[in-house]
Amino acid sequence: MRAAIFRNRDFVVDTLPDPKPEAGQVLVKTLCCGICGTDLHTAKFTDQFVERARKTGGRWTMDPARDLVFGHEFCCEVVEHGPGTEKTLKPGTRVVSMPLTITGTTVHGLGYNNDIPGGFAQYMPLAERMLLPVPNGLAAEKAALTEPIAVGWHAVQSARIGSEDIPLVVGCGPVGLSVIAALKVKGVRPIIAADFSPGRRALAEAMGADIVVDPARNSPFETWQREATPEGYDGSRYAQLFGLGPKLRPAVIFECVGVPGVIQHIIDGAAAGARIVVVGVCMETDHFEPFFGILKQVNIQFVLAYTAQEFAESLHLIAEGKVDVAPLITGTVGLEGVKGAFADLANPERHAKILVDPWR
Amino acid sequence: MRAAIFRNRDFVVDTLPDPKPEAGQVLVKTLCCGICGTDLHTAKFTDQFVERARKTGGRWTMDPARDLVFGHEFCCEVVEHGPGTEKTLKPGTRVVSMPLTITGTTVHGLGYNNDIPGGFAQYMPLAERMLLPVPNGLAAEKAALTEPIAVGWHAVQSARIGSEDIPLVVGCGPVGLSVIAALKVKGVRPIIAADFSPGRRALAEAMGADIVVDPARNSPFETWQREATPEGYDGSRYAQLFGLGPKLRPAVIFECVGVPGVIQHIIDGAAAGARIVVVGVCMETDHFEPFFGILKQVNIQFVLAYTAQEFAESLHLIAEGKVDVAPLITGTVGLEGVKGAFADLANPERHAKILVDPWR
Repeated sequence: MRAAIFRNRDFVVDTLPDPKPEAGQVLVKTLCCGICGTDLHTAKFTDQFVERARKTGGRWTMDPARDLVFGHEFCCEVVEHGPGTEKTLKPGTRVVSMPLTITGTTVHGLGYNNDIPGGFAQYMPLAERMLLPVPNGLAAEKAALTEPIAVGWHAVQSARIGSEDIPLVVGCGPVGLSVIAALKVKGVRPIIAADFSPGRRALAEAMGADIVVDPARNSPFETWQREATPEGYDGSRYAQLFGLGPKLRPAVIFECVGVPGVIQHIIDGAAAGARIVVVGVCMETDHFEPFFGILKQVNIQFVLAYTAQEFAESLHLIAEGKVDVAPLITGTVGLEGVKGAFADLANPERHAKILVDPWR
Repeated sequence: MRAAIFRNRDFVVDTLPDPKPEAGQVLVKTLCCGICGTDLHTAKFTDQFVERARKTGGRWTMDPARDLVFGHEFCCEVVEHGPGTEKTLKPGTRVVSMPLTITGTTVHGLGYNNDIPGGFAQYMPLAERMLLPVPNGLAAEKAALTEPIAVGWHAVQSARIGSEDIPLVVGCGPVGLSVIAALKVKGVRPIIAADFSPGRRALAEAMGADIVVDPARNSPFETWQREATPEGYDGSRYAQLFGLGPKLRPAVIFECVGVPGVIQHIIDGAAAGARIVVVGVCMETDHFEPFFGILKQVNIQFVLAYTAQEFAESLHLIAEGKVDVAPLITGTVGLEGVKGAFADLANPERHAKILVDPWR
């Protein structure tokens, strides 16, 4: 089969042996697969990623000296069942899956694995028990967005959202846009979103943001404060610390940037009692001032990925039209286009999500 | 009146004018007042404290060039009512109060204020509406511990404790000991506590810790892991990330040390999904690895002080014998002894809480 391979820190298109489904696995044909911000991070900061992932004892122990096929946001078609499978999903069925596969009793991550190809290849061996059939005749391009939408859905599910919360989304790349979509489903309003890019702010509005802010012109935190402060209240939150004074609407702030300094910047700007959900993946050492966190009694929830249930829910949110992913898809390339797409994604005005079609 | 005054970064005993109660205030006689870790921090890192507190816009805008009377953990006796007071508590009534007073509509913090003396002075002007009468004939020495116990009670109330949680308390100074006392009231077990000092570990047991760990000999995190892992489970938490595998008991870890590096040390050692409650007050810039927090999906809750309700609850926990503060009180000094007590508190084997009796 053909695949876009990350080899010697560069992308080449080459042939690889077709995967052979093992016990409990199903061979699938990749219809399309999105390029994720984590792919960009990993291609750029390969050594940091490997060193840090290894230190935590996770399974993302990729070896950058060996070939690797990225891709973990995919929609596929069932081709052939391996031994010991139930075969409930017939060949030709359109499916999605969490980016995991199983051999024996071992769970493997897909997309950062030297031994099993990810979605920038024509075929993959998936675990039968993880396959979800795509409902409602949903197009493969949209179904492939299940994974990034699940990231936002999980972040919002982890945020302990209440109806009184006023959410602020800092950064409107694919992660921030997915969070906005999930907040819209939850019905919390107004959704405030901030990004320096006009293109990203337009996408934020398309996904459901009620108020968009250009941080170069206005402070997102002051915008938040105006929305949260009852008429006539002087805005002092000191009394709040001791449970005195009027009850103010709580802040829930989503960090969707993932570069050093952003978490402290949010602590500096946040209202007392704010909950900060860190969805952006920062792979460098960061600094912060615990004393400021303490004085404001902020809560920081780091989140990653999603549960199996949240993944399935995300597929249905898209299939039922509760989340419209169309604005997110800004381009499609073949395998030869992967290298250029990684470069193009650096420009926030041009792209949000680029899909790879390995058959194009 | 006589007071221990922080003057030119040193302690001297001198006389100050007796405070005069303003409208809504009550003049009280200070019976005793504890020395807090934050007092030690502030005396040692005065400039950092002032600079950081000012930057957050808080009310702790003390001027180190002027006289200051510390002391915010006090028990007092009503002496004289100011104008416009209800006078429900007769002179001679023993009272405690949150370390706040009110002039007009302005709330002032006590203990870090150049204009209003704290508890290391013979008299204070307190707000009548904040006074709580000490019940059950509770001794003034024990009632003075209401404030530090409220700190632990608030930390535990903020931790969203469930009956399945296994708590780990890192650092058994007065803050950690107060957290242990609160956890014991909540009935979550086993309470695991870690401190390098044998004396502090003995106090931790006296306050209710079920398992104490010397981090120089054993990892507190491995001890925690042993308690949390069901018999026969291989300990992998990777599958947990996706909601797969058996449900493991959650970790809630209290950071009660307050020096740089401890938060990252806890993130490194914590189980996936751990909740970290930061109670220790670190006044220096700290560093951390967001990527590790993300991979483990940890939650960090910074806490400070307590609500009015939690303060009142703490007084009653002590008065009803649910929290025995006797082991915490390791010494009492007069005003002349304040300077020496600040030095003595550096030795964890000798002291936990030293009370100041301004009449001794």
